[in-house]
Amino acid sequence: MEQGAWSQLWLAYEKRQDRGAGAYVADVALNGFSGEHRTVKRALEELQAGIRGMLGIEGYRLRETAEATLVLKRGTGADQEIQKEGFCLLEKDGVLTVEAADESGLLYGVAGLLRLIAMEKSLAGICSLSNPSSPLRMYDHWDNMDGSIERGYSGHSFFFRENEVLVDGRTRDYARLVSSVGINGVVINNVNVKQAATWLITDRYLDKVRELAELFEDYGIRLFLAVNYASPIELGGLESADPLDLEVQGWWRDRIAQVYQAVPSLGGFLVKADSEGRPGPFTYGRTQADGANMLARLIEPYGGLILWRCFVYNCTQDWRDRKTDRAKAGYDSFIGQDGDYLDNVILQIKNGPMDFQIREPVSPLFGGMRKTNQMLEVQVAQEYTGQQIDVCYLIPLFREVLDFDTYCQEDNALVSDIISGHTFGNQNTGIAAVCNTGDDFNWTGSDLAAANFYGFGRLAFCHGLTAEEIAEEWIRLTLSNEEEVVRKVKKILLCSREVYEKYTSPLGIGWMVTPNTHYGCSVDGYEYSRWGTYHRADHLGIGVDRSMRGTGYAGQYQKPNAERYDSLQDCPEELLLFFHRVPYLHRLKSGKTLIQHIYDTHFEGVEEVEEMIALWESLKESISGEVYDRVRERMDRQLENAREWRDQVNAYFYRKSGIPDEKGREIY
Amino acid sequence: MEQGAWSQLWLAYEKRQDRGAGAYVADVALNGFSGEHRTVKRALEELQAGIRGMLGIEGYRLRETAEATLVLKRGTGADQEIQKEGFCLLEKDGVLTVEAADESGLLYGVAGLLRLIAMEKSLAGICSLSNPSSPLRMYDHWDNMDGSIERGYSGHSFFFRENEVLVDGRTRDYARLVSSVGINGVVINNVNVKQAATWLITDRYLDKVRELAELFEDYGIRLFLAVNYASPIELGGLESADPLDLEVQGWWRDRIAQVYQAVPSLGGFLVKADSEGRPGPFTYGRTQADGANMLARLIEPYGGLILWRCFVYNCTQDWRDRKTDRAKAGYDSFIGQDGDYLDNVILQIKNGPMDFQIREPVSPLFGGMRKTNQMLEVQVAQEYTGQQIDVCYLIPLFREVLDFDTYCQEDNALVSDIISGHTFGNQNTGIAAVCNTGDDFNWTGSDLAAANFYGFGRLAFCHGLTAEEIAEEWIRLTLSNEEEVVRKVKKILLCSREVYEKYTSPLGIGWMVTPNTHYGCSVDGYEYSRWGTYHRADHLGIGVDRSMRGTGYAGQYQKPNAERYDSLQDCPEELLLFFHRVPYLHRLKSGKTLIQHIYDTHFEGVEEVEEMIALWESLKESISGEVYDRVRERMDRQLENAREWRDQVNAYFYRKSGIPDEKGREIY
Repeated sequence: MEQGAWSQLWLAYEKRQDRGAGAYVADVALNGFSGEHRTVKRALEELQAGIRGMLGIEGYRLRETAEATLVLKRGTGADQEIQKEGFCLLEKDGVLTVEAADESGLLYGVAGLLRLIAMEKSLAGICSLSNPSSPLRMYDHWDNMDGSIERGYSGHSFFFRENEVLVDGRTRDYARLVSSVGINGVVINNVNVKQAATWLITDRYLDKVRELAELFEDYGIRLFLAVNYASPIELGGLESADPLDLEVQGWWRDRIAQVYQAVPSLGGFLVKADSEGRPGPFTYGRTQADGANMLARLIEPYGGLILWRCFVYNCTQDWRDRKTDRAKAGYDSFIGQDGDYLDNVILQIKNGPMDFQIREPVSPLFGGMRKTNQMLEVQVAQEYTGQQIDVCYLIPLFREVLDFDTYCQEDNALVSDIISGHTFGNQNTGIAAVCNTGDDFNWTGSDLAAANFYGFGRLAFCHGLTAEEIAEEWIRLTLSNEEEVVRKVKKILLCSREVYEKYTSPLGIGWMVTPNTHYGCSVDGYEYSRWGTYHRADHLGIGVDRSMRGTGYAGQYQKPNAERYDSLQDCPEELLLFFHRVPYLHRLKSGKTLIQHIYDTHFEGVEEVEEMIALWESLKESISGEVYDRVRERMDRQLENAREWRDQVNAYFYRKSGIPDEKGREIY
Repeated sequence: MEQGAWSQLWLAYEKRQDRGAGAYVADVALNGFSGEHRTVKRALEELQAGIRGMLGIEGYRLRETAEATLVLKRGTGADQEIQKEGFCLLEKDGVLTVEAADESGLLYGVAGLLRLIAMEKSLAGICSLSNPSSPLRMYDHWDNMDGSIERGYSGHSFFFRENEVLVDGRTRDYARLVSSVGINGVVINNVNVKQAATWLITDRYLDKVRELAELFEDYGIRLFLAVNYASPIELGGLESADPLDLEVQGWWRDRIAQVYQAVPSLGGFLVKADSEGRPGPFTYGRTQADGANMLARLIEPYGGLILWRCFVYNCTQDWRDRKTDRAKAGYDSFIGQDGDYLDNVILQIKNGPMDFQIREPVSPLFGGMRKTNQMLEVQVAQEYTGQQIDVCYLIPLFREVLDFDTYCQEDNALVSDIISGHTFGNQNTGIAAVCNTGDDFNWTGSDLAAANFYGFGRLAFCHGLTAEEIAEEWIRLTLSNEEEVVRKVKKILLCSREVYEKYTSPLGIGWMVTPNTHYGCSVDGYEYSRWGTYHRADHLGIGVDRSMRGTGYAGQYQKPNAERYDSLQDCPEELLLFFHRVPYLHRLKSGKTLIQHIYDTHFEGVEEVEEMIALWESLKESISGEVYDRVRERMDRQLENAREWRDQVNAYFYRKSGIPDEKGREIY
């Protein structure tokens, strides 16, 4: 296996205690799978590397027979319970079986087995079924072809450099890493498709795209491309990109034919249209459905999908205007066409109505749309959540979204159900994350941010995993099986989202960040801007009234969510300022006033970062020096950032309200 | 005369009414000057171009005799009153004499004569003496060698492109323009000397620098270079730039020798040291005087000057710290070495203690230092004053600075006196402005911004001119002699600084600008930053207490200025918030509360921009279409900017104070 100048992360396969696994893995039978299949080959390579590294077993016997101690078997289980891409691990009478319905399942099954070995779990008597929760499990990369990464905090792109596509050892390791946690789709280029990236669907790049797509195929991953909706104009020289224009359709038909001739395994296109300056169907008075369906109809013969982003809003709002509410825009733009989209279109919906803040309500499009394929988009890249300097383990946030009950029907109405296809019985559903990787040695800038890179895949594959389980897996695979390390790092990860929230913007109001960079505090940074992101603080209170008496956003939810959000009393307190305008002296359920809550959480946030650092420092002897140092250095920056947030937020509200801290702490 | 794809501004020499000038100018005698002298040649060329364009006179007879109707004569006047670079215009008995003590004076005298012709003034009986008020009258360009201009709002550099020095027709026209208003020194490169610019003092560039210096010499202009204080390290490969290190001194000695061998006419060096990340003597525990004198001693044999900037302050301040006061830093850094500087060092002092805000007190270094050569630095580039989008005629501001009485002695204690050398009897004094030009067709982005480009030179040469006189000259030379145009454009220019002040930050507090770009409103933009620029607004009031009870800055002034600024009652109201922390309900001399003053001025500011636009529109028929349109388009942007400032500032203070506008106007 090729090794390069980069970390192998959770596939490092370092020496482990053999809890009996060695007894199975040296004698392998392939049953129903061909050893010549590209993905089976990769699964066997991975098995080989894993047992060599972790158990010191140099090789294994491989037989195409049922007789062996490790049987890799094609099948759907005793009760047909193994589904597409699923697998089952079963140990009985000294024989360990990895059963899977297809090659991808086998690859995931081997990865699952290696995880257990890495975590030093006993395999005796194991009986574990894993079917993917969502059909489509994707990483979206915001990589630009010049090598930069939009909202990237881990170096440069490893997909592109100087307007060329890279296919090398690092790309292969990327595919190994993400497939090992169940990712089966990857968009390699930024949704903001500009300059050279517009040309990815032309001969200039298609050979190289095919090479990458084939590498991905080895690992059961479909390659997707983000495309520029204005391609007929920019590439084709047409005067329009109107989806109902026959010439435009003809242009796309030819282009798609050429793309699929070159790259038959292509998954399809991701499109950001009519958003933040990107062109789209609205330009021509067409609906989003008109725009998406045009492409979907043309790509359907090749089995392609159109992933259509719902991040549509007016980004030239006037801050003086209190009627327009950016939070409402996504729902308003898409709800009217529910049912109009073709079956190979999937609407890709950000988890919240704004933009990946540390706390937002779940988008009301989930549960609002009932006749449209939907997928959830979250952001593993920590744009607003610490930029891979501050520790912010995001799986708890993603779990909350999956567990959110939309009440769109009596049962099976969680977001998790909708994007699994259980709610409406559809096939084309899924989950995607904006990825946090780059060409840094450790892939993710902060070593702890790799817990999100790992965790998103695991959660996408298995919605049932808890944030704690995922954290523990990642720690054991990556850092150590020492109980103290597991316990303490888990503590750091599991509290980190709440800590970050405490020292940044309070109770769901979001933003308050430095414009453009989005790192660091600027309470009024977006208050008088065109972006529709306002907190409206004055000397009496803060918050946006999004109840039915305000902008009416709360009404976009199904009952009882709508009623709960509408009511100042019943609104979940962590979202209070998102839905309501609240006086500083309002008493929260804790008995504290709002202003005191702001002061207290900000002081606590900094103290908890200090505790985090102390916990990490106590592990100095147990964690590899480079990893320890990289994280430690970032923790200093996090502490500095947390103090700035604390002092700026507290000063801002003290100066505005004139209400002193009850505990008399220093506010500037 | 070479004509290029750029405007000739006030040297356009368009057809004028001949008010009798034609009778003199066709018969010219050179008396005491050689027609072969480089500068005399240029003066004659200019005369030729001027009379041809303005009076339609194709040529003149030139004789080296006293007999002619226009005599260009070397001399110092009947009472020796014509000084270095000065001139006298005298008409008697049908003979017009331009008398000057030197060739520069002759050049300026011809320019003065052409100005009168352009303004259609009668020359009969004229008797006008013009001596330069300050020996050194400079434009500092912040041009980078890649062609960009720091704080440039008029296109790219015409001195540099892609790391090469340009010497061409535009450079010559630049020299014609600035020498025609009396500029005699130019720094062509940015004071922040980085990258290629560090190499300007090496063989790589010196040939080209000489070519430019010689072109400038034609027009009586000395070329200066901004140098990198770390040159011994960056160019010489030394480990230090310590001014007391003998190796460092040796390196500079050799370098300066080579520079002057290549460019004997070089004026000297401008140095920004120990400021905003630039290296300097403080790095080595040396004083600013140590740093400046080391260079001065080495450059002295060549007649060179060291212009040493006083813009030294801590730019990594903590906003929480209320004791450190950036305003105090310049004085504190330099006052201790008063008298220590060699005579060929001039300290270049920004007009105010902060950084070119629309309203600041005058730097207390003026009047504080008594034994040190000083020059005033102002900014014609509109960094904080509208960026050549908003109209802001700055001559009134510069006049205020010149007229400021430092009270450092009983008489002759104005800033004007100090920088003229009258106060302390020194020779090396002067005035410099950061220039506002670029390679835009009209040089200055906004055509109206050329009034500052013109006006600074005129004011530098003649401190006695009023802002109104200069405005009128510029309008007549550039736009039109029509009385209506003169009257209305003068009105626009003369009110513009006050209007800009009204809609931006109130009463001397400054800043409140968008970070980095410095255009547009962001009330808290620099409030929690490291730059030492805070307004400290809370729910009760605003302002920084710089009295003796506060940071003590007021105490840096001489009496009675110190006492006046120290007192809330006596402090000039336009500087109230610079010196005092004031409650919103404090009554100003107008009887208005502070908060009402803020509201009123901001509403008025926008209304006055609207009036400005109406005035300009009324001149549509009288002003050339391109000029009219360019200005008109910028005025729309100014109006938009003014509205944003009005609404953001008013909203900010209303939200913070809760005090409504007495007139019930809309505040958001």
